[in-house]
Amino acid sequence: MDKILRINMGADGGPEAKVDSLGDYAGFGGRGLTSAIVAKEVPPTCHPLSEDNKLVIAPGLLSGSTAAMSGRISVGCKSPLTGGIKEANAGGQPSQMLGRLGYAAIVLEGKPKENNLYKVFINKDGVDIKEDNNLCMLGNYDLVDKMKAEYGEKIACISIGQAGEMKLAGASIAFTDMELRPTRHAGRGGVGAVMGSKGVKVIVVDDAGMKARSPADPDKFREANKEFVAGLKKHPVSGEGLPTYGTNVLTNVINEAGAYPTKNFQLGQFDGCEKISGETQAETENTRGGEGSATHGCHRGCIIRCSGTFYDKDGNYVTKQVEYETVWAHGGNCGIDDLDAIAQIDRLDDDYGLDTIEMGATIAVAMEAGLAEFGDAQAAINMVKEVGKGSHLGRILGSGAAVTGKVLGVARVPVVKGQAMPAYDPRGIQGIGVTYATSTMGADHTAGYAVSSNIMGVGGKTDPLSPEGQVELSRNLQIATAAVDATGMCLFIAFPLLDQPETFQALIDLINAFSGANLTADDVTELGKSILKKEREFNLQAGLTAQHDRLPDYFQKEQLPPHNITFKVTNEELDQVHNF
Amino acid sequence: MDKILRINMGADGGPEAKVDSLGDYAGFGGRGLTSAIVAKEVPPTCHPLSEDNKLVIAPGLLSGSTAAMSGRISVGCKSPLTGGIKEANAGGQPSQMLGRLGYAAIVLEGKPKENNLYKVFINKDGVDIKEDNNLCMLGNYDLVDKMKAEYGEKIACISIGQAGEMKLAGASIAFTDMELRPTRHAGRGGVGAVMGSKGVKVIVVDDAGMKARSPADPDKFREANKEFVAGLKKHPVSGEGLPTYGTNVLTNVINEAGAYPTKNFQLGQFDGCEKISGETQAETENTRGGEGSATHGCHRGCIIRCSGTFYDKDGNYVTKQVEYETVWAHGGNCGIDDLDAIAQIDRLDDDYGLDTIEMGATIAVAMEAGLAEFGDAQAAINMVKEVGKGSHLGRILGSGAAVTGKVLGVARVPVVKGQAMPAYDPRGIQGIGVTYATSTMGADHTAGYAVSSNIMGVGGKTDPLSPEGQVELSRNLQIATAAVDATGMCLFIAFPLLDQPETFQALIDLINAFSGANLTADDVTELGKSILKKEREFNLQAGLTAQHDRLPDYFQKEQLPPHNITFKVTNEELDQVHNF
Repeated sequence: MDKILRINMGADGGPEAKVDSLGDYAGFGGRGLTSAIVAKEVPPTCHPLSEDNKLVIAPGLLSGSTAAMSGRISVGCKSPLTGGIKEANAGGQPSQMLGRLGYAAIVLEGKPKENNLYKVFINKDGVDIKEDNNLCMLGNYDLVDKMKAEYGEKIACISIGQAGEMKLAGASIAFTDMELRPTRHAGRGGVGAVMGSKGVKVIVVDDAGMKARSPADPDKFREANKEFVAGLKKHPVSGEGLPTYGTNVLTNVINEAGAYPTKNFQLGQFDGCEKISGETQAETENTRGGEGSATHGCHRGCIIRCSGTFYDKDGNYVTKQVEYETVWAHGGNCGIDDLDAIAQIDRLDDDYGLDTIEMGATIAVAMEAGLAEFGDAQAAINMVKEVGKGSHLGRILGSGAAVTGKVLGVARVPVVKGQAMPAYDPRGIQGIGVTYATSTMGADHTAGYAVSSNIMGVGGKTDPLSPEGQVELSRNLQIATAAVDATGMCLFIAFPLLDQPETFQALIDLINAFSGANLTADDVTELGKSILKKEREFNLQAGLTAQHDRLPDYFQKEQLPPHNITFKVTNEELDQVHNF
Repeated sequence: MDKILRINMGADGGPEAKVDSLGDYAGFGGRGLTSAIVAKEVPPTCHPLSEDNKLVIAPGLLSGSTAAMSGRISVGCKSPLTGGIKEANAGGQPSQMLGRLGYAAIVLEGKPKENNLYKVFINKDGVDIKEDNNLCMLGNYDLVDKMKAEYGEKIACISIGQAGEMKLAGASIAFTDMELRPTRHAGRGGVGAVMGSKGVKVIVVDDAGMKARSPADPDKFREANKEFVAGLKKHPVSGEGLPTYGTNVLTNVINEAGAYPTKNFQLGQFDGCEKISGETQAETENTRGGEGSATHGCHRGCIIRCSGTFYDKDGNYVTKQVEYETVWAHGGNCGIDDLDAIAQIDRLDDDYGLDTIEMGATIAVAMEAGLAEFGDAQAAINMVKEVGKGSHLGRILGSGAAVTGKVLGVARVPVVKGQAMPAYDPRGIQGIGVTYATSTMGADHTAGYAVSSNIMGVGGKTDPLSPEGQVELSRNLQIATAAVDATGMCLFIAFPLLDQPETFQALIDLINAFSGANLTADDVTELGKSILKKEREFNLQAGLTAQHDRLPDYFQKEQLPPHNITFKVTNEELDQVHNF
């Protein structure tokens, strides 16, 4: 992984690929690399859809190795949704494959002069870029089928659906999973729109003939990996909760805590919760059977296996096991308690290439505007279908909650820096509110998952309803997360890492054994800090200031039942988060 | 004019009116008063459509007197379009009438609990507020007819059309002219959406029984007014150019200069220019005749009389004589060279209550997105009609150029702080580019009309194609404009003021004779500075920083024909504008 593939989509004679050495970027991976490239090479004031923006796709430092959990991938650019820097993270197979092929990053630059669509094929022999306007306005599922027919079954795809082609700010980038289905998405921030603006419909990766990357010290690496895996297995969250019920185990937990945003963040508990919980979902999946209904991972090397497959009543494949945040977005947040409808919407989101969180928040805003009643599942399905059609309504919705609020004249819009809040009400879990407000990414639960300590008691216990200690908690988590996002590791390793010092040490040993470096825990913290500092500096230059590190005013005014609580962390406290 | 009418639209038992004394606001008028109230009473981070925003409607310091040109009115709020403070300025009759009734301002506060629509009637006996949902989704023309039937012919109306009711960020507030037609608009920044969010459809003003406000020193006042009027009459712009051809006299001038933004700011000259010029327009109006085709003023007391009436081929009234910026917005900027079509769109904009500049810029962006061909007048008419219908497309377009660009995936969007640029390309007239970039209002030609010196040689001569001297010019004009906007005087008095020291002195004498004050020229400058400082501080607190004092990047990269020039004022220079 010592090279960067740069494709200039705006070259005079059509797209031009060249392979660069890592140069100054040596030692960076994942979010560390995407943010370094964006911060250095993209003018912060450029239009996100202009030729000056760049789309960076980077496997993690350990991707392509046999290290457990190392197959996550980072996508970076200036975000059309937030106007700031963006790293969106996904699972799927491309990360491991790109790692094996030796690519630390793919960088899409420039912009085609004509309105053509391209496909990129990458294998051990090099890179091939072809114009293919037959792919125009295909959904991700049909697109992947076409690529399979063309390139065989051993490939992985990185692609956009209709939403990305339309350059909508809610557009995601799909990464195929182990079953070669486009179910894993770099969802947030409109990264799919940037890929669309580059005219790239799909990047097909084939690592045939390549082997796993070799560690510097194979024995130590094997040993550390074993210890690391043992640590993951023994922690109740990564070893038991997630594998058994998937991420949707959280529905009951967060609802119980009174922090489950319901009907566009009007309430903290949803009375239809039981019908869409992880427990109900698991039971449904088990009853309906079909191959692959057992929990499984989203990428090669995953040992937590929090995913699964969702079948309809007749046993036909619908989508992957729907994640908690998606179940919430299209479920409780829209007042919908129908798992089949939610799964259907998840499938549509994946097919059109849409961020499920942004779409769920957007539909709830549209419901508040009166376009449909809360709870009307068919109306929600129809709205998402409008995006696929590219109708005017669809384009509004596909542009995300902030734009939809503007166009429909709604004042209660749960966004920070233009990005919709995920499945945790910041009044019921004050720590996550600090992360939403201050993350360089806009409202993003994964940027500093304070739910862990506020609700689960992982990494210590903090009172979710008190502002006390939340700033420090969020700061530390944001730093740690930035570092983990650089490794290519799944963020769920954080649960055992926070509780089990020996597992944290195993991870450091793993990195050192692989790279031949001699990192300490402090170095990892410094890495996280340096990534955040780079991102924040980009955002400042792009015009995002302390005033953007705020929740919408109404979270400080409207009390959330059942605790009847507002967001209580002060602006002065929020301004301390990046004080490190 | 020693009282403020405050209407709390969110009071528990329905809207509540109360009359406040001026208190701390004594001595403020027009923009000076709207910006003072907004800066002091509106939380800068509030949602512009929330109950925390306030809509302030304020006549100028001299409004209601017999001073020439004193009938302009200011509307202030936090802008749904820019996210910053807003003062939108209009002519029409309400300013003089409110002045005579003694109101320094009307302040709409709060937000109705239910989705009801109200009308407010103000006369010498007080204020009456009635729920009237029959007014729902009426255009301004029908609405005014209804009000005439109800309250008689001696009234003036302040109202919103469909756009304001839908809370679209391109919505204006209409002020009736001397013929009781809703042709004068506080257009910019979406002030109509804020009035819509307050649930107020129309404010009907009747000044029967009231007299003009008395000057402190009637003799001196009469003398100063005479001198002031003589100054206006003798200047070539206010005494000749404007009365003869109206503001549209500029079409040929700006086109000649190569600074006429054509087809969404792609070119600096429009080949259909002659067909829509002020000269052609005047000839057309004279040929078509009809009563009132002679040039006339937009408000009682106007002596420049740059307005007129536009009739169709059969002599039927269509709209007022269309202003230069509107002719440009719906003309050259959309590649349209048909005066009748442009007049028809102007009428639709006025009826729906839409900012013509924002709408023209938006339609051009939609044309760049491929929704219609440049030059297709019927398509442009149809697009505006979509707004009136409230269709999804209409809501997109009515939300302005920035949102339309986002939803349609267009990167070339000519906005600053989310507000569309008016009819002067900042590359061909670099001075106006400085004003666009740095005005507290977003892109706004009236905020510091550097065209005067760059093109007309009024107030000295500056090279329009050179960055030299533009920062100082724009700064001085922005300061002077803020002061003029506080007086209730039409901004066109600035031409003689800049060239004729004796006319400037006459204005100061006029103010002093009226108010009994003893102001100097320096005091006027200080007034302007203090207004700008207040506005800028609000914007900073709302999250608008130096990074927002910029033109979109492409103005620094794309050369504008025929001069093949880019915007050359540096960021460092722009940051000096507010350094006073």
